[in-house]
Amino acid sequence: MPDSKAVILLSGGLDSATTLAVARNEGFGCFALTFEYGQRHEREVASARKVAEAVGVVEHRIIDIDLGAFGGSALTDTAIDVPKDRAELIDGGGAVPPTYVPARNTIFLSYALAWAEVLGAFDIFIGVNSTDFSGYPDCRAEFIAAFEAMSNLATAAAAEDEGAFKIHTPIIGMTKGQIIRMGTRLGVDYSLTHSCYDPDRQGRSCGRCDSCRLRLKGFAEAGIEDPIEYRK
Amino acid sequence: MPDSKAVILLSGGLDSATTLAVARNEGFGCFALTFEYGQRHEREVASARKVAEAVGVVEHRIIDIDLGAFGGSALTDTAIDVPKDRAELIDGGGAVPPTYVPARNTIFLSYALAWAEVLGAFDIFIGVNSTDFSGYPDCRAEFIAAFEAMSNLATAAAAEDEGAFKIHTPIIGMTKGQIIRMGTRLGVDYSLTHSCYDPDRQGRSCGRCDSCRLRLKGFAEAGIEDPIEYRK
Repeated sequence: MPDSKAVILLSGGLDSATTLAVARNEGFGCFALTFEYGQRHEREVASARKVAEAVGVVEHRIIDIDLGAFGGSALTDTAIDVPKDRAELIDGGGAVPPTYVPARNTIFLSYALAWAEVLGAFDIFIGVNSTDFSGYPDCRAEFIAAFEAMSNLATAAAAEDEGAFKIHTPIIGMTKGQIIRMGTRLGVDYSLTHSCYDPDRQGRSCGRCDSCRLRLKGFAEAGIEDPIEYRK
Repeated sequence: MPDSKAVILLSGGLDSATTLAVARNEGFGCFALTFEYGQRHEREVASARKVAEAVGVVEHRIIDIDLGAFGGSALTDTAIDVPKDRAELIDGGGAVPPTYVPARNTIFLSYALAWAEVLGAFDIFIGVNSTDFSGYPDCRAEFIAAFEAMSNLATAAAAEDEGAFKIHTPIIGMTKGQIIRMGTRLGVDYSLTHSCYDPDRQGRSCGRCDSCRLRLKGFAEAGIEDPIEYRK
């Protein structure tokens, strides 16, 4: 599908970097969208910039949004600790962890929808993943399907029958190991990506938060060495 | 339903002022949410502040969001003119007008959902109106129903069965005249509200944009004098 435009949500993590590579590989002109949202780890945004440049996008917008205004998450509220070494993560305990940011993907996808409509694009890519599911409700296929249905009622583009929005989730059913193997085939440079919820001042990853542990497990599964630096 | 919390989207216009009064009248503790989004008429936000204070809210949050970053609307992009004296407005021409802001209500409701989840609230009020429908797709009942369905899949609160979100649209089926009559009964001071898409520097309304004309038609229908000042 060459010459089509797509909006890709890009965080700087490995899932969204791989998702961007998939969109590029499918021939879309890619418009990457990154949010700064009072997250503790501004390092993510720097990674998003590098990934967008390396993969090749038509445009990269970075939007400052104040999700921290509402609090309620360890990722936006310094009063809540980022959990380490959680047993439930690997065991699949099921509870929503404190790193959940209320309605985050809903807000992100809403902005992507706004930009897509202005661009005349009908394709939106998001790197949600439910296999190595760390308990976020807004990473599930049911949520994505509901958002897509809503999009097709929300917009002038859809109301005027110019097209139908599609929310692409190319890695939703993959394990982290499968994602990394596919991304590696597509040429993703994972040394540019960042996953840690709690990096130190030098930007080195902790290796112990949910996000680091899923990442390390994924590289181990893929039989590939993780190129980023961990502390200690 | 006393002691329940609700998030109310409040723009400073007469629809949302009336919607807030309905939520208060139903006994909700009201958390009003207003957006500054690069709109031409900052006067709206000043009106929202006055309305929130007059009706009585537990908290009023004003969030700065950069919808203008994407352009595509006469309300956020100074390169697009606000239309005046449109025949289609009153005739019901059906096309989406240039004052439509792409995905605006989707973004607004997404933020309301985030705040509601942090507050432990399950009730969200929005003053959309489809009778005096000026062509916005995201003011229709089908869109609201789709957003509500999505909300109940998007959030930890819903995933953990703490409750179900409800998007209240108390004025969706009313004419502007009916809205104004109901609001007047509930004590809304419409002199505090602002509707014009294109006020002058003194904040006086133009009387000719879609929003002014719907307002004036509404007051005429209600048999009540519009207390705000128009230019000329």
